[in-house]
Amino acid sequence: MKSEQQMKNVFVHPAAMLDTTRIGSGTRIWEQSHVMKGARVGRRCNICAGSFIENGAVVGDNVVIKNGVCVWKGVTIEDGAFIGSGAVLTNEREPRSGFPKALARTRICQGATIGAGAVLVAPVKVGRYATVGAGAVVTRDVPDFTLVFGNPAKPRGFMCVCGRRLNELPKKTKTRCVCGARVAFQKGKVKVLAAPRSCPH
Amino acid sequence: MKSEQQMKNVFVHPAAMLDTTRIGSGTRIWEQSHVMKGARVGRRCNICAGSFIENGAVVGDNVVIKNGVCVWKGVTIEDGAFIGSGAVLTNEREPRSGFPKALARTRICQGATIGAGAVLVAPVKVGRYATVGAGAVVTRDVPDFTLVFGNPAKPRGFMCVCGRRLNELPKKTKTRCVCGARVAFQKGKVKVLAAPRSCPH
Amino acid sequence: MKSEQQMKNVFVHPAAMLDTTRIGSGTRIWEQSHVMKGARVGRRCNICAGSFIENGAVVGDNVVIKNGVCVWKGVTIEDGAFIGSGAVLTNEREPRSGFPKALARTRICQGATIGAGAVLVAPVKVGRYATVGAGAVVTRDVPDFTLVFGNPAKPRGFMCVCGRRLNELPKKTKTRCVCGARVAFQKGKVKVLAAPRSCPH
Repeated sequence: MKSEQQMKNVFVHPAAMLDTTRIGSGTRIWEQSHVMKGARVGRRCNICAGSFIENGAVVGDNVVIKNGVCVWKGVTIEDGAFIGSGAVLTNEREPRSGFPKALARTRICQGATIGAGAVLVAPVKVGRYATVGAGAVVTRDVPDFTLVFGNPAKPRGFMCVCGRRLNELPKKTKTRCVCGARVAFQKGKVKVLAAPRSCPH
Repeated sequence: MKSEQQMKNVFVHPAAMLDTTRIGSGTRIWEQSHVMKGARVGRRCNICAGSFIENGAVVGDNVVIKNGVCVWKGVTIEDGAFIGSGAVLTNEREPRSGFPKALARTRICQGATIGAGAVLVAPVKVGRYATVGAGAVVTRDVPDFTLVFGNPAKPRGFMCVCGRRLNELPKKTKTRCVCGARVAFQKGKVKVLAAPRSCPH
Repeated sequence: MKSEQQMKNVFVHPAAMLDTTRIGSGTRIWEQSHVMKGARVGRRCNICAGSFIENGAVVGDNVVIKNGVCVWKGVTIEDGAFIGSGAVLTNEREPRSGFPKALARTRICQGATIGAGAVLVAPVKVGRYATVGAGAVVTRDVPDFTLVFGNPAKPRGFMCVCGRRLNELPKKTKTRCVCGARVAFQKGKVKVLAAPRSCPH
């Protein structure tokens, strides 16, 4: 447990509830959010209004969690992920009142985007720099750099590190994004040859 | 109206708002929830953070309502139902600002599960021990013990009392769930021959 | 900026947060809602519990915003629109943590209805008196008076000013709604010949 000294660079809105000091430097936690004891939140995160981070949840560095998102025990959000407003994460496969079952895990990998209002059905993993479209219902793992949307969500294309769609893949095997990244498509996978010019990661 | 005496076993988080004493014994009401005057909530319920229970709403015993669910006037949630996080219930068929219309009812029957982020379009009834998959949009009544998902939600299989999918139905006419329940499939309906070993209902 | 004098007819719940006085007369703002500085909210609106209206958002007169809706910078909601509970609005096309992009606008035109739990994917415009069905995911502009639903949302019919479905269009070229409105269907568009008997607009 960090000392309060280590919490010095954390902004906590007066109407937020914070039951832990395990919050990384530079993180902001907004009104009506609640971070429970036993949750871990990394550095330079932006935890927007009305979020709920449960005991056992893990949030990396540079994560953006928009309004009204609940991060449950069993959910891991890696560095640089973006969780859109009203996205719904889960940690139970077949919930029933009075019939508790084993935890089902959700893992959102580095740099991924979960679109606003999307639903992730655990157990599920969203790969690195993947994007789940707004309102999608994800019932299967999403590969790295892959765009999925729909209900159920299906692969529809490929995304750059910067979050833009790579329209030229997989027709071309190499392309350059407007962000400056150079990307190759090999054996069904995206490989980053050069990072975006102003990559924060 | 119950006396405060009868509210003795109710846990109300200091950041919850409670305008009624019609709350059953053993129920817990968490932060930023609001239970309005004229709402009824049964015994041993768990009303999670940010829920809203309106005047006229009816919630039975042993109900779990996860974070951020609104239970409107015209909505009845029967004993042992589970409402997932961010599920959306409704009580108007064709809303328009300035053009009020008759209430449309939503009924969630005994032991049913509404998956996280699902939307129920009133008027609608979800049958006993049915399960609405996460992110589903329900536009028709759901029969007892039936699993529905998708947008629009369609019947996809059958569920046990305990919330597990009965993969063997309807191919076999009888099956046993890992929970110990014995189940028969007759004339398109599920019949429970023996309850789960540790059935709380 | 209006004086506090002009805020006299505004109801603000004691548990709401209000950082602006640019709120029109007759508007009600309920518990746990937050209207930020730089937001504009018109007259006679009903802003329900847990709503969030960001700096730069614009809300017209006679607008109903049900529980838990976020209205972002870049979103304009015109007079008489209805936004259902848990509807998700957006202002970014391809969000990614650390890679800010240009704002994408959302415009909800006069008298339109956004169904509960629907998701609008910006940039997008919902036309006058259109209805987005509950749980729909809108990825394209919606024409005036048009009903859309599904994921992705597609045109399915036509709506009256009062919010009722005009089942007779487009088979007939003229029809009368139970609200008293008379409507013509010309060149694929709905034209109102006579308004509803008790039209508040």
